[in-house]
Amino acid sequence: MASRSVLMLMGKSRLLNARVVSDNARLLSTASPGLTSAPTFPKRHGQTATKDERREFMGMFPDIVRDLTGDPEKRNQDVERWFHKVLQFNVPSGRKSRGLAAVASFRTLVPPEERSEERMRNALIVGWCVELIHNVFVIQDDIAKGRQVRRGRSSWHNMDHVGVKAINDALMLENSMYFLLWKYLRNEPYYIKLVELFHQVALKTSAGRTLDALTNKKDGTPNFEKFTMDRYMRLIRNKNAYYTFLLPMAAGMYAAGVQAPELHRQAKTVQLDIGEFYQIQDDFLDCFGEGVDIVKIGSDIEEGRISWLAVVFLQRAPPALKEEFMKNYGKKEAESVAKVKGLYEELKLHQLFDAYEEQNYRRLYDEIQQCSLGVPKGLMMTFLEKLFRG
Amino acid sequence: MASRSVLMLMGKSRLLNARVVSDNARLLSTASPGLTSAPTFPKRHGQTATKDERREFMGMFPDIVRDLTGDPEKRNQDVERWFHKVLQFNVPSGRKSRGLAAVASFRTLVPPEERSEERMRNALIVGWCVELIHNVFVIQDDIAKGRQVRRGRSSWHNMDHVGVKAINDALMLENSMYFLLWKYLRNEPYYIKLVELFHQVALKTSAGRTLDALTNKKDGTPNFEKFTMDRYMRLIRNKNAYYTFLLPMAAGMYAAGVQAPELHRQAKTVQLDIGEFYQIQDDFLDCFGEGVDIVKIGSDIEEGRISWLAVVFLQRAPPALKEEFMKNYGKKEAESVAKVKGLYEELKLHQLFDAYEEQNYRRLYDEIQQCSLGVPKGLMMTFLEKLFRG
Repeated sequence: MASRSVLMLMGKSRLLNARVVSDNARLLSTASPGLTSAPTFPKRHGQTATKDERREFMGMFPDIVRDLTGDPEKRNQDVERWFHKVLQFNVPSGRKSRGLAAVASFRTLVPPEERSEERMRNALIVGWCVELIHNVFVIQDDIAKGRQVRRGRSSWHNMDHVGVKAINDALMLENSMYFLLWKYLRNEPYYIKLVELFHQVALKTSAGRTLDALTNKKDGTPNFEKFTMDRYMRLIRNKNAYYTFLLPMAAGMYAAGVQAPELHRQAKTVQLDIGEFYQIQDDFLDCFGEGVDIVKIGSDIEEGRISWLAVVFLQRAPPALKEEFMKNYGKKEAESVAKVKGLYEELKLHQLFDAYEEQNYRRLYDEIQQCSLGVPKGLMMTFLEKLFRG
Repeated sequence: MASRSVLMLMGKSRLLNARVVSDNARLLSTASPGLTSAPTFPKRHGQTATKDERREFMGMFPDIVRDLTGDPEKRNQDVERWFHKVLQFNVPSGRKSRGLAAVASFRTLVPPEERSEERMRNALIVGWCVELIHNVFVIQDDIAKGRQVRRGRSSWHNMDHVGVKAINDALMLENSMYFLLWKYLRNEPYYIKLVELFHQVALKTSAGRTLDALTNKKDGTPNFEKFTMDRYMRLIRNKNAYYTFLLPMAAGMYAAGVQAPELHRQAKTVQLDIGEFYQIQDDFLDCFGEGVDIVKIGSDIEEGRISWLAVVFLQRAPPALKEEFMKNYGKKEAESVAKVKGLYEELKLHQLFDAYEEQNYRRLYDEIQQCSLGVPKGLMMTFLEKLFRG
């Protein structure tokens, strides 16, 4: 499983470039249903946020910082200054794709004439809360994995004079997020549902990380007995799909006043499936993504991580190939990596991935089509198109 | 500031023993108002929980574990097993004084005939939630301070094969707590207030820890410019008083159905003041508590920590003594420690403490007396008596 940190859905094409190295040149668009027909729901013009929308989102960040460091109950200037640093360093430096997606979810559901100043502000707050919890996970993950570099510079805990203080900073960020929700949204009918959504997503994320950590043996080497499809699917759903795909969509729905459990159930199904496919594609690109604009060079094989390719390989390989695979997987040496890639090619995992991809595109397309009014279908289609057509 | 981890309010006398080494043999009880007169509100018999009440509290723990590891949405057996370990190792091993205090707060306000099975269960759940968040702080603190021993055995992160995974375990504990509140209390009118209380207390605690961490210089030596009474008071209130004294009392009030902001304001004032005095007494005992049953031998002087004694000393000492103090404070050598203790004695800090103590006893006694019906005054008096009379 790749650990690429940047959500590429908002970036450039992934798969069209990946095709260059794929031996299967089929173009998805011709094989896919209905993408060229008129949309039956408002599209987001192929992107989650326009330049102006990004500017509007960023324009609120100084207010967020002021709210969270304004010494509301006189904590002390040193604390405010420190927290100012924590916020400024961490929160606005990512792509903000999750926060922008939350605002886009709101916009998809609320037509411009109904976006009062207050409702718009609330949606932006919700977007920033999504970004805050994202940064809680980022800070914690970077400490746990000893990651020194993040977003092309030092990770927070790796900064001078931060170190283990970062653990507490994450707690402070997390609970500041709830303070923001309280401050701005406590009188909204959806307030408690939104709070519960954040709790639930944090719990899922923690469970997914535990599952990830327990997939390797105690000495850190891969435990192939645990490389099952069932475990892999639970892992990627819990660890990433909840907070990256479900949370922004559902939070934006609440901000739009959509509370009906059935609509949230539908959105959850689609978004977890999109998140699942996103991760599988990510794993594929980690190995075969040469030439694709991804920030992190893949190292799933070297690090012996559970990935879609490894799991499918172990499901299908005859004993002799399996043995060879296990000898080489999780080794840093270039020839071991090449050996594993060769084995993947021998089993034609490219083709399997292509088939899986096409099947999933159809399934996701249908799932989205079947969603009721009140689910941000336009935004979901944007996600789907980005995933499959770049 | 001492870092004694065990709340002694439920244990044996502290101050009466401390008097042995104090040169001031005044007995507080004779100088204090009204303690021997008939109580005007139900007393808790001088203790927070009876043996039966402790047994009842512990009796619920297996249910808590079952609720939190019952795989409600099929996380995966490995995760459930791991989380089972996290819960079993950490949560029931402390004194549970905070959780028991929350239940006692409920009991003080709800007469036995009104304690239906459901209300009693809810109060116990609230008590365990207080214990859960306490353990979140404990796990995080132990990592941040590199503490290897906790409660007379290995700390969690120091256990084999735990390590940095403990960061995520704390997140899992924290959000499991909110899951419990949701599961059992989401239909209670006080549910959201209770959730917000936990958020607020976590934010305060994180701010207090930051203040603590920023009191020393970057090289870890004490920064005497920051040893001010104002900073010290903010530090101890935020870092400890909120979660140790305010949280249990207020959470128990909610469980008893007491929501009125004015009553919570009164309880907050008293409990933060009690927490403040508790910490000051703790600091005094850290230095002069020889013979008192405290678990951790004091090391505030050696570690150069901000403490009530150090702050008061620096407020009052003439320049020459101050200089001598600064030369010796924060040094491990026995003669430096003895030197600092000698300086404290030279400035008669014993007597200052005694005066402060008496003044505070009177103030706290009055504060409690003035609280309205609906505030757990009986329990507050129990706390007060424990603090001042052991």
